[in-house]
Amino acid sequence: MNSTAMPQQELTTGRRGGRRTLRKARAGIREPNLPALKRNLPLVEPMSPEQIERIDNASMDILENVGIVFRDKIELSDWKKAGAEVKGERVHLDRGLVKELVASLPSDFTYTARNPENNLPLGGPHSIFVPMTGAPYLRDLEDKRRYPTLDDLAMFHKLAQMSPALHLSAHHIVEPMDHVVAHRHLRIIYSSMKYSDKTFMGMTTSPKNAEDVIDMCRILFGDEFIQSHPVVTGNCNCNSPLIWDETMLGAMRVFNKANQPVLCSPFVLGGANTPASTAAAVAQLNAEALSALAYTQVVNKGCPAIYGHYLSTVFMASGAPMAGTPEISLMNFMVGQMARYYGIPWRTSNTLGGAKTFDAQAGYESATTLMAVMMSGANYIWHSAGWNEAGMHCSVAKFMVDAEQCAMAYRMTQGIHWDDFDECIAAIGDVGPGGHFLGHPHTLANFQDAFFMPKLFDNNSIEQWTADGSQEITERALKHAKQLLAEYEEPKLDEATDEALLDYIARREREIPAIEALNNEH
Amino acid sequence: MNSTAMPQQELTTGRRGGRRTLRKARAGIREPNLPALKRNLPLVEPMSPEQIERIDNASMDILENVGIVFRDKIELSDWKKAGAEVKGERVHLDRGLVKELVASLPSDFTYTARNPENNLPLGGPHSIFVPMTGAPYLRDLEDKRRYPTLDDLAMFHKLAQMSPALHLSAHHIVEPMDHVVAHRHLRIIYSSMKYSDKTFMGMTTSPKNAEDVIDMCRILFGDEFIQSHPVVTGNCNCNSPLIWDETMLGAMRVFNKANQPVLCSPFVLGGANTPASTAAAVAQLNAEALSALAYTQVVNKGCPAIYGHYLSTVFMASGAPMAGTPEISLMNFMVGQMARYYGIPWRTSNTLGGAKTFDAQAGYESATTLMAVMMSGANYIWHSAGWNEAGMHCSVAKFMVDAEQCAMAYRMTQGIHWDDFDECIAAIGDVGPGGHFLGHPHTLANFQDAFFMPKLFDNNSIEQWTADGSQEITERALKHAKQLLAEYEEPKLDEATDEALLDYIARREREIPAIEALNNEH
Repeated sequence: MNSTAMPQQELTTGRRGGRRTLRKARAGIREPNLPALKRNLPLVEPMSPEQIERIDNASMDILENVGIVFRDKIELSDWKKAGAEVKGERVHLDRGLVKELVASLPSDFTYTARNPENNLPLGGPHSIFVPMTGAPYLRDLEDKRRYPTLDDLAMFHKLAQMSPALHLSAHHIVEPMDHVVAHRHLRIIYSSMKYSDKTFMGMTTSPKNAEDVIDMCRILFGDEFIQSHPVVTGNCNCNSPLIWDETMLGAMRVFNKANQPVLCSPFVLGGANTPASTAAAVAQLNAEALSALAYTQVVNKGCPAIYGHYLSTVFMASGAPMAGTPEISLMNFMVGQMARYYGIPWRTSNTLGGAKTFDAQAGYESATTLMAVMMSGANYIWHSAGWNEAGMHCSVAKFMVDAEQCAMAYRMTQGIHWDDFDECIAAIGDVGPGGHFLGHPHTLANFQDAFFMPKLFDNNSIEQWTADGSQEITERALKHAKQLLAEYEEPKLDEATDEALLDYIARREREIPAIEALNNEH
Repeated sequence: MNSTAMPQQELTTGRRGGRRTLRKARAGIREPNLPALKRNLPLVEPMSPEQIERIDNASMDILENVGIVFRDKIELSDWKKAGAEVKGERVHLDRGLVKELVASLPSDFTYTARNPENNLPLGGPHSIFVPMTGAPYLRDLEDKRRYPTLDDLAMFHKLAQMSPALHLSAHHIVEPMDHVVAHRHLRIIYSSMKYSDKTFMGMTTSPKNAEDVIDMCRILFGDEFIQSHPVVTGNCNCNSPLIWDETMLGAMRVFNKANQPVLCSPFVLGGANTPASTAAAVAQLNAEALSALAYTQVVNKGCPAIYGHYLSTVFMASGAPMAGTPEISLMNFMVGQMARYYGIPWRTSNTLGGAKTFDAQAGYESATTLMAVMMSGANYIWHSAGWNEAGMHCSVAKFMVDAEQCAMAYRMTQGIHWDDFDECIAAIGDVGPGGHFLGHPHTLANFQDAFFMPKLFDNNSIEQWTADGSQEITERALKHAKQLLAEYEEPKLDEATDEALLDYIARREREIPAIEALNNEH
């Protein structure tokens, strides 16, 4: 494996890491964390200003004329007070009202992590990579597909903690099936807080679960602190087309009131729950996202929120979601333009795909998605590691490779380095025709940094590869995961805080009847 | 497999194919060919006009002050006559002279194929996909790695012929090891001409071999015709840094004199034969490419040529070439800007990678490269199908998947379709909140075309996939290749032409001693 051939020495993100020399890496394979990406590469923006306005107009027409359903009494009453026209569950939103509300959303903000080194600016040029979540199965350290446990979830939180380009530990990367559903959210959030000192996500599976998340954040960060500092992210999906349900809206309000950001995420199955048109699908999702984003400002003016979406197109013969298709890339480019038009940070999904194993299909789907996402300028890049089988399983092997791919995309998106250009041009004169640069002083001083060297790709000859055991990437990545886990050191939680969290969980587990399980799930 | 679930009906490239309804596909899985891509998506252009000029200046400084070695007496004499300063084998090229010569290169031209439906405009917004070439091994229809034969080469020419987005049959996709080296070029070019009616490439393994290629093109197209119509492409690699050798230059001259385009291709192993800097590597390759491009105009003013390169960065621990790295993507974006600055069509490489099998590594490497290449605006997109193991083998399975990926990239790069936007927005009103679009008249009329449905990706449930035999993508792609080959129909060559070509080959095989074999190879 290539990584073993690399000299161990001080690792830096070096010149391309903003000239910061990071702390000396521990002995071993772990590399230092990367700060939030600050993009310095032009984006792909396929729409003219007129086309952006055409989408905007169509979305506003939908909100005014078709209206949008909010299946939640509080929300309907809130919208009436805010001046919207409410007919039954359907709310017709005037474009003036929507634009006024959306204008009060912060265009950027900073997440606070329990380790301040992991604080993250978000919005504008700043982007972050977030692991996948929600998998009911995993492919484990032996590539076996099975139900996940709390220990498996902890393992993923540890791997996220140790992956340089993964900026969050997220929440339920896999569903811990060994714990009762009604109490599961408590264990999930605790695992995020305990095994990683990066920021995380919080469950929005019900308004009460969302309250537990916020209460635990209060314990970790302090009551007053979180009221003015984003520390956790929730996700609320739209039932596209044009319906927001009570569970999501209730959970959203809990986050809004605590001044914590939610992703307002239409769930696009292009051609099934949208028209069979990229442009019209974008207009619909834009209407859906804006309706929820506007509502966050009715609940708590000025609270942060993120323009979200899950994007796929469907295989028309079976209705199955696809990934890495040309239209998904185009929609990502377009949604990016819309979010920037409104000045709101936005979320997309990364590394999606439908492969059942970590085969070449998984590689094509993930890399295509990643490249489109980088060119779209997405800020909150969710599902960035591990996703496979349309989200049905999280693969440990793929998690490792995706995490490295994110680090490569990070490097690309930092753009071209010019500082040593004249020195390098002089080197061409030094070396001259027919020479080589391997021994040139500039090369010797810069070879670690100048070109990214992926550890999980094998570029050896077939003879060397065969001698090394003919390992395909799955095997190499699992070996890498095991090495990383062997090096894992828990980022210690303050003991009193840890105890308070465990007390909270114990109390809530006594209070919440296990029987409520199924009612809390969506 | 998904493809079997798709209804068989008239296939069209439809709206996105420029509203052309293509001829009815034959019964079976074959789809109609796509014309040359006309790009309609903005490019990623990371350099400012000042930075482009900085590269240009550095390249001109290199050509003037360091000079470039031409290991060829005719060329040295030509350059003297053209006014360059020649010291031994080293030529110092004044920037005025270089720019004047380069200005006479056509910015676009059209390839003629023996089937005029397959003629191809190249340059500006027009791009074409070309299969990989030069593999000394293949992974065959059973995924077995072995030496290729002439029959294997014919098989790849047939697959190229039947792949909608592959615009050329290329030349030695694999090296036919069962035929004597000295005569091989004759059999290779004949295979390209015989099994496909798309355009092709011609061997440049020696000046004499290049003459055979041109002679056979004269037989196929007519003496006079080819003097004013590009019908074949040659490739000439630079021995970077800054050396062009006699074999390449001699072959290049043969093509130039016959008015046939060559790719002037510096061979970049970033960090080994260039400085450890993306910007400086681009300046060096730009100098190298321009020196050869300028020479084509010394040989035959106004003849077409293509700004080429092979781009990789090296794994510094072993010197092995890497693929899909961030710096390769950045260099592609930059080279695109330079070629457009000079107004010359340009070539890049696609689907490169170092994986030994068709595993997820191969998928990530290929898709990353493809996406970067599409965003770079490359015109002649070589090595677009089959490449694996750093070019050491061509994989049949990967060839099929890459070809489909090119079709997907083609679709993406055609950009957003707006024609039915208002109709689709009206559909949102028709369907309303909570409905679905699958039965809407617009969906029924457009579901085949609106969203690309890759046949080689499996998006079924794991239960369906298991019932279908748990096939990974390699198995599915090989099955697809066998189905395509079963449907192959040879595009008949005019009998007299075919006989003349075979007579020419027979004569040349009598004339060329088999013993010369090794001298002709480079």
